[in-house]
Amino acid sequence: MKKTALIMAGGHGERFWPRSRRDLPKQFLSLTDDGKTLIQLTVERIRPMVEDGDIYISTNRDYIDLVRRQLPDIPLENILTEPVGRNTAPCIGMGAAFISRRSGDALMMVLPSDHLIKYDQMFVSTLQDACDIAEKGDNLVTIGIAPDFPETGYGYIRFDPSVTELRGYKVLNFTEKPSLEIAKEYVSSNEYLWNSGMFVWRTDTILGRFERIMPDVHEGLMIIRDAVGTSAEKDIIEKQFPAFPSISIDYGIMEKSDNIYTIPGTFGWDDVGSWLAMERIRKTNEFGNITEGNVITVNTRDSIIIGDKKLIACVGVKDLVIVDTEDATLICNRDATNEIKKVIENLKVCNRDEYL
Amino acid sequence: MKKTALIMAGGHGERFWPRSRRDLPKQFLSLTDDGKTLIQLTVERIRPMVEDGDIYISTNRDYIDLVRRQLPDIPLENILTEPVGRNTAPCIGMGAAFISRRSGDALMMVLPSDHLIKYDQMFVSTLQDACDIAEKGDNLVTIGIAPDFPETGYGYIRFDPSVTELRGYKVLNFTEKPSLEIAKEYVSSNEYLWNSGMFVWRTDTILGRFERIMPDVHEGLMIIRDAVGTSAEKDIIEKQFPAFPSISIDYGIMEKSDNIYTIPGTFGWDDVGSWLAMERIRKTNEFGNITEGNVITVNTRDSIIIGDKKLIACVGVKDLVIVDTEDATLICNRDATNEIKKVIENLKVCNRDEYL
Repeated sequence: MKKTALIMAGGHGERFWPRSRRDLPKQFLSLTDDGKTLIQLTVERIRPMVEDGDIYISTNRDYIDLVRRQLPDIPLENILTEPVGRNTAPCIGMGAAFISRRSGDALMMVLPSDHLIKYDQMFVSTLQDACDIAEKGDNLVTIGIAPDFPETGYGYIRFDPSVTELRGYKVLNFTEKPSLEIAKEYVSSNEYLWNSGMFVWRTDTILGRFERIMPDVHEGLMIIRDAVGTSAEKDIIEKQFPAFPSISIDYGIMEKSDNIYTIPGTFGWDDVGSWLAMERIRKTNEFGNITEGNVITVNTRDSIIIGDKKLIACVGVKDLVIVDTEDATLICNRDATNEIKKVIENLKVCNRDEYL
Repeated sequence: MKKTALIMAGGHGERFWPRSRRDLPKQFLSLTDDGKTLIQLTVERIRPMVEDGDIYISTNRDYIDLVRRQLPDIPLENILTEPVGRNTAPCIGMGAAFISRRSGDALMMVLPSDHLIKYDQMFVSTLQDACDIAEKGDNLVTIGIAPDFPETGYGYIRFDPSVTELRGYKVLNFTEKPSLEIAKEYVSSNEYLWNSGMFVWRTDTILGRFERIMPDVHEGLMIIRDAVGTSAEKDIIEKQFPAFPSISIDYGIMEKSDNIYTIPGTFGWDDVGSWLAMERIRKTNEFGNITEGNVITVNTRDSIIIGDKKLIACVGVKDLVIVDTEDATLICNRDATNEIKKVIENLKVCNRDEYL
């Protein structure tokens, strides 16, 4: 069965400010040594399985140019524009409608564009396993991540180790972000996986779920499907899409579905959730520092210092995250990266849009 | 007796890097709220006592333009150029030679250009007292500072409280930078003052001391004096001055002289020795921060943040000194300001002269 992929690239997180901006969100940043952006790496990673012509990118109007520039090999008609943000369910539904129209019933991998994966071959092989389960019939497959530690910032997937389908386990339910205590129980139980937001299914399977669970959305999706490739495509999307409810695929479809299987991924997944991820991505030096760009350190330890053109000189400091850009410099304690959003709130309140 | 002043402005300290540079040392920086530079404030402070035409500025070739630009009211012929740095004794000797040639025997106040004084009127009145002692005859007067705490970075002046001359006390001797223990004894004895580097004497008195203690230098100074105002002035200085030994007025003259008096200054003297001085000069806000320029702080405490054009965003940090400039940003722990020079050493070693 034909394999296709939908890469979701409409997000606009604020955690990588000041590098990430409204007009340059995280997925379009290069955070690794090789200079490639997260979305470029995402595409490269699935190329062994999926032809460029079968890779779809869903994004919003503001990022179309970035997608074209960073992914020149993806056909323009595969870049799907969400007229407004409606979370992942409508995004995935529209992707399924496009793929279904172009390729009929096909395997569809749904992938975030702003994560990193260390072991590409393992990843491909896990996706292949997921395809095998999905291809068999009416199954939804979600890629879980074997948890390293009791992370309280992720949702968890509970599975039944005794019910398998090929290399997958039957999913019992999805859970919200847990407390630390509960997260610890989850991890030690060996029956929970992190919810990575990666899915595999057949287009006819997922559209069938929409029909059953979100019939109004399904109706809109069918109208869009009929318009794909016609002169009315753009107008129809602009009419139908904004009417969809803003809801995640997890809440909208997965939690109300059966026949869900999960495969524990052990391919070095990283959601690159904050600047601290740099310590997992890059090599720290003998002083525990990561430095990039025009940086001088004196008695500086355990810091992440991302310079740009301007000279950044650090003297006697510890545990800092310093990020310099053309027009803004962040100096943040390593334990305070979740407060970077307060800077952005301040900038919004003061209408200082040039920094957003 | 005519009052004149020699303001010494040849220094090139590194403690205010990255604001201070080789071509813009501390005395030419504005560190106070009023936007005036330290040397401008120095001149303003003595204007109640000394005519602009009697104020002399000693500096080196590199800073002539800065002096002219910042002090347009000082006559050009009062700006004395040291062809090379030779510490304070030759600098003061040459100043005395110029003033002696132009004004004969006159009172001469010698002042650093890079200190701050809080109570200007008190300062003027102290200098007036010093002038009274100096005018009486063969006396050298040094302005001491009543020590607030056992500073180990300054030299101290020991005086005899029982031997007075007008409002001055007889100086017994000068001491080097003491250990903390000894500094504590000094402070509690009430017989020691900080050596501020400010002096008052008559031109004939100081030149007489040069003649007695440093006769070779005196000979050169007399040759310079004869050339002042002639077409040979520049050539003569360039020939004589470099031959002078590099020695401070304290070592060269004061420690070998008698008839020295000191007046305890209580006019809010500050040598502005590091960025931490900003906390004495400026008002800290409710979080203990001093901020200037384009700065946003979130949960930031006890920090000095001197921004420029670029946005500096501080999140969850404490006890930092952050100084942004056009081409370099310093991020320094408040306890590490004396290590800023290591950055400069690094820059020198790497021939990165653009940052020096």
